[in-house]
Amino acid sequence: MSEYRKDPVLNQWVVIAPERAVPYNLIKENPENEEKEFEPSCPFCAINPEETKVLLKYNIEDKNNWDLLVIPAPNPFLRVETELKKEAEGIYDLMSGTGANEIIIESPKHNEHIFKSNLNKIEQIFWAYRDRILDLKKDIRLEYLLFYKENKTNGITHPHSKMIATPFIPSMIETELLGAEDYFSYKDRCVFCDIVKQELKDGIRVVSQNQEFVSICPYASRNPFEVWIIPKNHQSHFEMSSKNQFYHLADIYLDTFKRLHKALGNIPYLSVLHNSPIQEESLEFYHWHIEIHPVIPLYQGEVFSAGLYVNPVAPEEAAKELREKI
Amino acid sequence: MSEYRKDPVLNQWVVIAPERAVPYNLIKENPENEEKEFEPSCPFCAINPEETKVLLKYNIEDKNNWDLLVIPAPNPFLRVETELKKEAEGIYDLMSGTGANEIIIESPKHNEHIFKSNLNKIEQIFWAYRDRILDLKKDIRLEYLLFYKENKTNGITHPHSKMIATPFIPSMIETELLGAEDYFSYKDRCVFCDIVKQELKDGIRVVSQNQEFVSICPYASRNPFEVWIIPKNHQSHFEMSSKNQFYHLADIYLDTFKRLHKALGNIPYLSVLHNSPIQEESLEFYHWHIEIHPVIPLYQGEVFSAGLYVNPVAPEEAAKELREKI
Repeated sequence: MSEYRKDPVLNQWVVIAPERAVPYNLIKENPENEEKEFEPSCPFCAINPEETKVLLKYNIEDKNNWDLLVIPAPNPFLRVETELKKEAEGIYDLMSGTGANEIIIESPKHNEHIFKSNLNKIEQIFWAYRDRILDLKKDIRLEYLLFYKENKTNGITHPHSKMIATPFIPSMIETELLGAEDYFSYKDRCVFCDIVKQELKDGIRVVSQNQEFVSICPYASRNPFEVWIIPKNHQSHFEMSSKNQFYHLADIYLDTFKRLHKALGNIPYLSVLHNSPIQEESLEFYHWHIEIHPVIPLYQGEVFSAGLYVNPVAPEEAAKELREKI
Repeated sequence: MSEYRKDPVLNQWVVIAPERAVPYNLIKENPENEEKEFEPSCPFCAINPEETKVLLKYNIEDKNNWDLLVIPAPNPFLRVETELKKEAEGIYDLMSGTGANEIIIESPKHNEHIFKSNLNKIEQIFWAYRDRILDLKKDIRLEYLLFYKENKTNGITHPHSKMIATPFIPSMIETELLGAEDYFSYKDRCVFCDIVKQELKDGIRVVSQNQEFVSICPYASRNPFEVWIIPKNHQSHFEMSSKNQFYHLADIYLDTFKRLHKALGNIPYLSVLHNSPIQEESLEFYHWHIEIHPVIPLYQGEVFSAGLYVNPVAPEEAAKELREKI
């Protein structure tokens, strides 16, 4: 029996439809290609930091080479040098394309996927996100930095994240902020704090937890095996995390990806940092978190035409399967 | 130079990025397969209305056979027989899956695509949408009927539309309604009426027009060659259109698809009816319209992670190209 579940943050109904055929064959057909550490055709393998503009470089693990690089995107569609102009065109509103496109190359090794990586490496990725936020928030024209990690969705398998900086808040994040603010104004509590509390009490949608974080399959999951990683204690800004929190974030991130890999193979996925706008002070109503969306290569007309998600895997089933895999 | 343009209805910024490579090869590589009128492997070609539950049948053109059929979807995820129950699960909200999934088989001919169809046939499709609305609005549990026509996006090329009936408004339509209501409360004018007026005055984004309708590439197009067909005069509910309007709608729909076909070939697309909620009386702030989105088979991380659309084709360029093709 299908049912409708409301996402308490976005205020959107999702259809949980176990009647619908689970695209398990699509999910599970992720043959583990024999991937090498170095792949000559990969642009990120071939990169030479001496010959490229580098925005950030870590060489803590490998003093002679590099562990992680942040570079400007080779084909940016936004530029930070552009003057930010805002004007009307009749009834319409226009702004110049001030912003930035950056790429975080997370490892020199082509095949160092999260699920077979290590805590130090993963912690470095999050430190790099933080360092870029601290640098770019000085530019007060920029309102939002969107960090997302893609695996195999764009044809690139070399471990990397992308960052897009914009002078506005991207629409899905804006909807989330407005929904969370609404909830707070009504209940005087953070909706994410309420989610954490209820999920830890119920247990059925919990994938794993440690001292600082819990990972869950959310109640109104839009996609099969969607996982959110949420700090247990209220915190609006990712970049204000303590050293201890970064360590525990790496720990639960590695654990979650090991479980996803055991259940589904080396799937294509998006892992997105949902953070507060960078120019805001601490927010009572918003709580940063990471959303991991396994990507099913199906074109869903109802999603693209009207934002109507139909998910054939109940989050309780997904969480149970992930809890058992370790 | 990229720029940001705000969709005046959704209040969302879109990046118009001519710097980005236009996926013309993807758009234009739409080989015209030799399609037959009858394709034995197609489930819609094989249908026998005597042996199938039929919700609506037209046989005006072909008295011995049928011109158009509406059937329940073979694998529905929603059911109208379900009792609509609403309850809380802790902080969460749950409803039973009351609703309906229907399929409009627009022609018995496998290859009768809009661009090579005729006015009578196209008018029938819209009359069928209307007849289903008039029938289903009697069920006051249902709030919205989403009609969308898919071509090649779901592997099915036989001309068809889908309809999903839900006891809530799908999220993208809800955002549109809220945005339009906001605009109205601020300006005391319908935002779509303002769009029609400005587009007819500017002309640069107009694709074509007739007595009743205008088709435009919208100012903040999310996708290359996106086209909206809007009634020139204010009207909130599609189903209240006059016979004259249905005729002119078929006329502009055929004209628009002929142009899209000449410019881009037999592309995969979604054509979505944006209508008012069926239980509402006439609305001052909302204006029904049709959105046609050519579908580019590219996975765009920024869209899926945060609703950030990056469109490499300025709507003025797309409209110019479409105006010249006829």
